[in-house]
Amino acid sequence: MTASQEIHLVRRPDGVPRPEDFAVVDTVVGEPAEGEILVQNLLMSVDPYMRPRFNGDQALNEALIGGGVGRVIGSRNPKFAEGDIVRHGAGMREVFLSDGRGVQVLNPDPALSLSVYMHALGGTGITAYGGLLETGKLKDGEQVFVSTAGGAVGSVVAQIAKIKGCHVVGSTGSDDKAAWLRDVAGLDAVINYKTEALAPALKAATPKGIDVYFENVGGAHLDAALTRMNVHGRIPVCGMISTYNGGGEGVRNLFALIYGRVTMQGFVASDFPHLNAQFVADMTGWLKDGRIKYQETILDGFERAPEGLIGLFEGRNAGKMIIRVAQ
Amino acid sequence: MTASQEIHLVRRPDGVPRPEDFAVVDTVVGEPAEGEILVQNLLMSVDPYMRPRFNGDQALNEALIGGGVGRVIGSRNPKFAEGDIVRHGAGMREVFLSDGRGVQVLNPDPALSLSVYMHALGGTGITAYGGLLETGKLKDGEQVFVSTAGGAVGSVVAQIAKIKGCHVVGSTGSDDKAAWLRDVAGLDAVINYKTEALAPALKAATPKGIDVYFENVGGAHLDAALTRMNVHGRIPVCGMISTYNGGGEGVRNLFALIYGRVTMQGFVASDFPHLNAQFVADMTGWLKDGRIKYQETILDGFERAPEGLIGLFEGRNAGKMIIRVAQ
Repeated sequence: MTASQEIHLVRRPDGVPRPEDFAVVDTVVGEPAEGEILVQNLLMSVDPYMRPRFNGDQALNEALIGGGVGRVIGSRNPKFAEGDIVRHGAGMREVFLSDGRGVQVLNPDPALSLSVYMHALGGTGITAYGGLLETGKLKDGEQVFVSTAGGAVGSVVAQIAKIKGCHVVGSTGSDDKAAWLRDVAGLDAVINYKTEALAPALKAATPKGIDVYFENVGGAHLDAALTRMNVHGRIPVCGMISTYNGGGEGVRNLFALIYGRVTMQGFVASDFPHLNAQFVADMTGWLKDGRIKYQETILDGFERAPEGLIGLFEGRNAGKMIIRVAQ
Repeated sequence: MTASQEIHLVRRPDGVPRPEDFAVVDTVVGEPAEGEILVQNLLMSVDPYMRPRFNGDQALNEALIGGGVGRVIGSRNPKFAEGDIVRHGAGMREVFLSDGRGVQVLNPDPALSLSVYMHALGGTGITAYGGLLETGKLKDGEQVFVSTAGGAVGSVVAQIAKIKGCHVVGSTGSDDKAAWLRDVAGLDAVINYKTEALAPALKAATPKGIDVYFENVGGAHLDAALTRMNVHGRIPVCGMISTYNGGGEGVRNLFALIYGRVTMQGFVASDFPHLNAQFVADMTGWLKDGRIKYQETILDGFERAPEGLIGLFEGRNAGKMIIRVAQ
């Protein structure tokens, strides 16, 4: 028997989640049965997609769904050996049993930090890669606008677009992130939408219009982008974070889709299994040669997951938000 | 020299156009020069797409742009003979000279009314056909929702979908149109959005969700449809009439695109030249065997074009709005 903990949702949040909406619950985990593995969570991912699930899909008083990276500490499943590093979607549990479904053995590149398998080489990385290149049908040298360009997905999108020779404009909500995007990631222009009027700033930054708007925000961001879309432009819709807490403005410029023959298309990370091998090869190379840079915000301690979730929706993270459970 | 008239926009409308925004202007048209034709307009088309142009693209104090069907009454162009029936985009002019560009000789089927070449066999017909079958990627037997199903485009969309074995729900703004759609066009369900609450009525009418929402309205219609879209659903965006007069609500449910992997795509009639031969063959057959039915609102008299435009935006037309200039 192993002592463990879980993060539960105990109340449906009204707007931005509050500490009282969550509980850290003590549990005990048994030994693996035939076919099972016992996994020690090492890193847990905190992501924007979690918020809309709190309104209904996430059960109350159960472990929050979510992904992580762990170490196999006991195995009665021939596909896994003790010591294997695995990526999983087993939720916010410190130690857990699994039948192995949805658990993937990683072969982490020793030249890279294990944490990159939670973002640039993980779900947010393939979300950026597939969303930009397949859903967004990016062509070399196009005009690209990325919202929440300082985030885990947006920062990878923006840098892939730069690798592809595009003119890349990003929006973000803080001067620190804006400086990182301009000075470290090498974007052509960055808009701090909290200190600048978005629509005129976007117009000034996109003199050749926008071919691909990578959509993470919705609301006023989408309205501003719609007025700048070029004919046959594409809007891959990755997220609409402005609407997740039930607020945000309605979108009024969708008529621009018509004469522009613009395509908006939603997608999720799991749409791209056929791209995975090429993605891993490309991204590993880009990370190792420094063409993709990243930021992480790591909170140490399993019990800090609610703090991480709340911080994400308050924009207090720089880059990927990660909870470190163990070394 | 031939006496003629033109319809001019003399003031940019504020909201729904008013009679004072237009003028009927007397002109004189000369004889055709070498390479030119002289055309007597017979029928002029009044369409929703005209309204947004009044905000800028339509020049003031010039003939309104627009399409029509006319008869060649003089020709010094070898491609045209006197007496030819032609379709043109020469604007709201009673008689006009043309160098023949953008003028298409029709071979009207004698079993059909000439007016069908203005709608079911014209621009609105191929808009419906291309938008539903190519942009909307309709598959036989799918679940279809059509907004402004009583209009020139929507009524054809709904009937093509019925021909393709689909479950078809339409929305319209009058009981007369609803009755026509149900009893004559054979839709499975019709919602009068002025007398019923749209969202619950749509939910009740689409127990299997929506695979294709043919979008003509925007605003609350789009919000209601978004909540009913099936995975990999398509929203071909033909129009957003609720927004053309600068009003209408913002759209708040676009996040539904994401998990549904829904595609919204704008298009215009001119996107489908490659479909034209198949369209004419299919539609001529469907009209002659009565599988596509239509309604027309014909105003007699060139000078009634402003009345037709205003009536269109006030929903006073049943089916295609046409101005008859001459027999």
